[in-house]
Amino acid sequence: MIVVMKSDATDEQVAHMIRRVRDMGLEPHIIEGTGRTVIACVGDERLKAPEGLAVGAGVEKVMPVRARYTIASREVKREPTVIELGRGSLGGSALGIIAGPCAVEGREMLLETAHAVKEAGAVALRGGAFKPRTDPYSFQGLGQEGLGYLAEAREATGLAVVAEVMAPEQVPVVARYADVLQVGARNMQNFVLLSAVGACNKPVLLKRGMSASLEEFLLAAEYILSRDNERVILCERGIRTFETFTRNTFAVAAVPALKAATHLPVIADPSHATGRADLVEAVSRAAVAAGADGLIIEVHPDPETALVDGQQSITPEAFAHLVESCRAVAEAVGRSL
Amino acid sequence: MIVVMKSDATDEQVAHMIRRVRDMGLEPHIIEGTGRTVIACVGDERLKAPEGLAVGAGVEKVMPVRARYTIASREVKREPTVIELGRGSLGGSALGIIAGPCAVEGREMLLETAHAVKEAGAVALRGGAFKPRTDPYSFQGLGQEGLGYLAEAREATGLAVVAEVMAPEQVPVVARYADVLQVGARNMQNFVLLSAVGACNKPVLLKRGMSASLEEFLLAAEYILSRDNERVILCERGIRTFETFTRNTFAVAAVPALKAATHLPVIADPSHATGRADLVEAVSRAAVAAGADGLIIEVHPDPETALVDGQQSITPEAFAHLVESCRAVAEAVGRSL
Amino acid sequence: MIVVMKSDATDEQVAHMIRRVRDMGLEPHIIEGTGRTVIACVGDERLKAPEGLAVGAGVEKVMPVRARYTIASREVKREPTVIELGRGSLGGSALGIIAGPCAVEGREMLLETAHAVKEAGAVALRGGAFKPRTDPYSFQGLGQEGLGYLAEAREATGLAVVAEVMAPEQVPVVARYADVLQVGARNMQNFVLLSAVGACNKPVLLKRGMSASLEEFLLAAEYILSRDNERVILCERGIRTFETFTRNTFAVAAVPALKAATHLPVIADPSHATGRADLVEAVSRAAVAAGADGLIIEVHPDPETALVDGQQSITPEAFAHLVESCRAVAEAVGRSL
Amino acid sequence: MIVVMKSDATDEQVAHMIRRVRDMGLEPHIIEGTGRTVIACVGDERLKAPEGLAVGAGVEKVMPVRARYTIASREVKREPTVIELGRGSLGGSALGIIAGPCAVEGREMLLETAHAVKEAGAVALRGGAFKPRTDPYSFQGLGQEGLGYLAEAREATGLAVVAEVMAPEQVPVVARYADVLQVGARNMQNFVLLSAVGACNKPVLLKRGMSASLEEFLLAAEYILSRDNERVILCERGIRTFETFTRNTFAVAAVPALKAATHLPVIADPSHATGRADLVEAVSRAAVAAGADGLIIEVHPDPETALVDGQQSITPEAFAHLVESCRAVAEAVGRSL
Repeated sequence: MIVVMKSDATDEQVAHMIRRVRDMGLEPHIIEGTGRTVIACVGDERLKAPEGLAVGAGVEKVMPVRARYTIASREVKREPTVIELGRGSLGGSALGIIAGPCAVEGREMLLETAHAVKEAGAVALRGGAFKPRTDPYSFQGLGQEGLGYLAEAREATGLAVVAEVMAPEQVPVVARYADVLQVGARNMQNFVLLSAVGACNKPVLLKRGMSASLEEFLLAAEYILSRDNERVILCERGIRTFETFTRNTFAVAAVPALKAATHLPVIADPSHATGRADLVEAVSRAAVAAGADGLIIEVHPDPETALVDGQQSITPEAFAHLVESCRAVAEAVGRSL
Repeated sequence: MIVVMKSDATDEQVAHMIRRVRDMGLEPHIIEGTGRTVIACVGDERLKAPEGLAVGAGVEKVMPVRARYTIASREVKREPTVIELGRGSLGGSALGIIAGPCAVEGREMLLETAHAVKEAGAVALRGGAFKPRTDPYSFQGLGQEGLGYLAEAREATGLAVVAEVMAPEQVPVVARYADVLQVGARNMQNFVLLSAVGACNKPVLLKRGMSASLEEFLLAAEYILSRDNERVILCERGIRTFETFTRNTFAVAAVPALKAATHLPVIADPSHATGRADLVEAVSRAAVAAGADGLIIEVHPDPETALVDGQQSITPEAFAHLVESCRAVAEAVGRSL
Repeated sequence: MIVVMKSDATDEQVAHMIRRVRDMGLEPHIIEGTGRTVIACVGDERLKAPEGLAVGAGVEKVMPVRARYTIASREVKREPTVIELGRGSLGGSALGIIAGPCAVEGREMLLETAHAVKEAGAVALRGGAFKPRTDPYSFQGLGQEGLGYLAEAREATGLAVVAEVMAPEQVPVVARYADVLQVGARNMQNFVLLSAVGACNKPVLLKRGMSASLEEFLLAAEYILSRDNERVILCERGIRTFETFTRNTFAVAAVPALKAATHLPVIADPSHATGRADLVEAVSRAAVAAGADGLIIEVHPDPETALVDGQQSITPEAFAHLVESCRAVAEAVGRSL
Repeated sequence: MIVVMKSDATDEQVAHMIRRVRDMGLEPHIIEGTGRTVIACVGDERLKAPEGLAVGAGVEKVMPVRARYTIASREVKREPTVIELGRGSLGGSALGIIAGPCAVEGREMLLETAHAVKEAGAVALRGGAFKPRTDPYSFQGLGQEGLGYLAEAREATGLAVVAEVMAPEQVPVVARYADVLQVGARNMQNFVLLSAVGACNKPVLLKRGMSASLEEFLLAAEYILSRDNERVILCERGIRTFETFTRNTFAVAAVPALKAATHLPVIADPSHATGRADLVEAVSRAAVAAGADGLIIEVHPDPETALVDGQQSITPEAFAHLVESCRAVAEAVGRSL
């Protein structure tokens, strides 16, 4: 941590801050710059609450030096974490694709979709049984009935099942049916939920919050990891910006930046990132080219009539085309699919 | 809802969309524009899922016409909702100020702060017992012990108590001690939590999510209102933008815009909005001048050593000054404080 | 400047960076932290190009310590700069209001508006003769003819004239007619234009770019100041964010933050900030309460038929009301209007 | 254009708006919805100024239906525009790469870089002679001397030369030396400059403004096109968002979205988009996978000592590697490089 004093800070103010830093158990190094004094603080600042120093008299700003996540960091674990997923895995040299409808709308549409995406090359089936909906009057999912259909589709196809969990009390029931628990973007900083899935013995697919910085994203993963659940999959799904031609802005640079910062697998969700079916394939290829370990794609047998997110769902035929074109790109970057 | 067809849409594609619209129970009006056909759809579209129409062949875009919230709307209830709060209220002509530490750190600091803010003119005491923290390794609050101190401070001062609730299972215990349940910005779209506080018989202080649009904010309120809890207080607390000189960007225009759209009281949180103690008073005055019904302010006896958010906490003396200057502004705009 | 090395940086890499820092004429102070080495660099880094150090082997990041603006800074000049404007001034205890149509549409509408805003209390008349338009096919202004009408309105009313200049070659002609040259938000980083108005002996009203940080805004002012033009008026006019209920997001906290950082006067443009006539008065009051030195307001005799920006223009009657309500707020914060 | 009336609009207010619409030469279609009246307006609204209708009594909002650009649109010209560039072209099936230093720092470094990038596969050399710098005290470029070196490098290598033009008066001199005129992101809405390069008989490389919407970007292109210059190259270079781990956020979905909306070639600038040398190659691959027609990359023989933007410049060796890996991706998506 670096404490930068104002240019007109008094000696007394500098001395006061030095004492404060010592009180926190850190070792201050004083550097007299041209025009202002800087106090470099040595020691592990992460368990302290140094923000308050910013209001000290004569202080201009306080700048942290280190990232606050640890277990998620490549500094701690160099080799990539590989997470098994159905017939495949995420984080190794082969990519894995998760696909399925935004919401489980019924038994037949789910089984039809599951067979189609398996055939096209998916390793896992997504499908929401409990749906987080912005509008309280819209379809909220089939609940446990939907989970049952997902389990049935797994039996029928061999695909792993990914299902969202929206609250701590849903963790046991979703964990009973699903292979991977998904924490949605709106819950990325629902810390009670993160602790609950951290205490569960299932892989967690953690979506980036729509205004989360990469550090906040990794700290959310750290919540789960620090509860001794080592299987966290990070998912870039677009951030909220001034852009309106897409639903969110897919921050493709987050993929290599995350891969450099952490050993966890990183996948992409082009469906939510764009909110436009016609852009999903191009953005999927971009994610693969940038180094993503996998994709999660919304597929629906009849997107026009989908109860949720039809505008960003693609047909099974379009999905099969997407897999083929992503496979070519994966091979071009030395991966397989 | 307006469906805009592409300039090269075929007659068949237009006919198909007209059928789709009818299938949804809406009445289509076809307008042949210069260059493209537009289908205006009459009927209540809010219970449908029209997003999928956007992927229809020949469709350029689908534009909703109506806001999706109802109970929160001024169209449904013209007169402002006034919510009692300790010795005061929110939503009437008098403003109400909520103040206190970010986190309850102990009994004495809380009582000291409570007496000071009451003296200065606050009607309610804030203080977190369960703290949502970005970093899993930082102070997480005193839990039920902290709630006990809050209740004790209420007995000693007559201030109402506002405390945050982070998960559905915390609702009963927080409701036992607190007068107002706060839902934090990170949980604004935690829909299970919104339903839980909606089912509770206490006023709810709902903070705007850091990347929530005003419509999403009002839909979150609608979740609570639709569970028959009519007492929702909206709180603008800054949004996330490219700005870095403040922690968030206080969107002051949201105050009059919300007041025009809804009958619910609207307050401001200049502490979180700015993240800078030196800006809190000026922004508080701005919020009052723009028509806010109240403020929520972080006050700490010694901000430099605060365990949480010291950088944005002000001292009791600074708070007393803030109240005086906000009172003058309130009177200038025909309100009282 | 602080150079933070990676945790696995080699001794050789550290030694290399120390040499680089010395080559730049800076004095390196090495601090061995827990887990990584930090090099604090003393000396004036502003004339160097230290960004390249970030790509040095073993470097994690480079953090600047000092702001890069000098002449604009309060560190250099403590007392506020006061700029004369017609019958009034900006930057002193009295506030000044600039008002008028977005574009000069004709002689009569301009004179009518000028008389009305003068009567209501404005000190200067705004009106665009050269209009920067997003759309090449829309009304681009009356050019020199419009400037003539502005000068005539000055003769008739005693109001100072504020007019926009869009290119270096327009500076002489606009300076011949106007009292203040305005640089619009889209030109805030048009550095050739900044230099040109800096070389002109007229006050400059500089609007904040719609995605400019405060430091970039002050550096744009520094361009003008460094050409020996000391009369720069800063104008917060809203930034671009994910918000769509307003045209831009008025960042009210920028007003006190700028006042703390610089001695230059700071005014607000609630018309462009909101893009909604119904929000202009409330946001004007907020700006005044936050400490703005003045306002610039779009006023049009018939906003519905305005050729430019009718949606955010208010009538002369609404303007008179706005002035009255802002005067009360100004007095509440110890200013006059 | 669609005019949505408020739910409580009176018959008189509706009648007034209908008259207004007719006065504008548009044909109103009245649709009585559930709860409100909607007026769909038929006719070419692009030459009108319909924004003012939004302030009409009883009006809730005004929604445009059509995009405002015409010549840039695929609706007008279906086949892609191909622009010759040195030995290659942009917009056809083969991709073109432009590379070189951010600023021309001297003759030798430029020739060295030119030979290296040509060898690696570039078709054009970039290099700034007039540099737009945020900070008035930093290196501003070599001016005409730099242009001379660029011309010399063209003679030596056969590469086309791309150079930035910052003001209308620079157009003639830059056009004398360069093959392509670049308009930078900060000047994307410098409309006088756009007109000036539109009147020049050279291709223009137009960078997207850092907070420009896609429609604003295409309207800026339309300024150039409408001056009869048909050779405009669009360049996505990252937008400004809340993200701080990269300098800007590379909006990869803009590439396919632009390709769908316009016939103009679309290239990507991963150097400015990321501001981080270590991310440039991954983002380049992503851009190619998403369908970009080319890349513009900052290459410097010694990035650590670069006078401008060293942090995002890559070495000639790294550039050669980038070209190889992008070639593989280009082939995977059916293109060549």
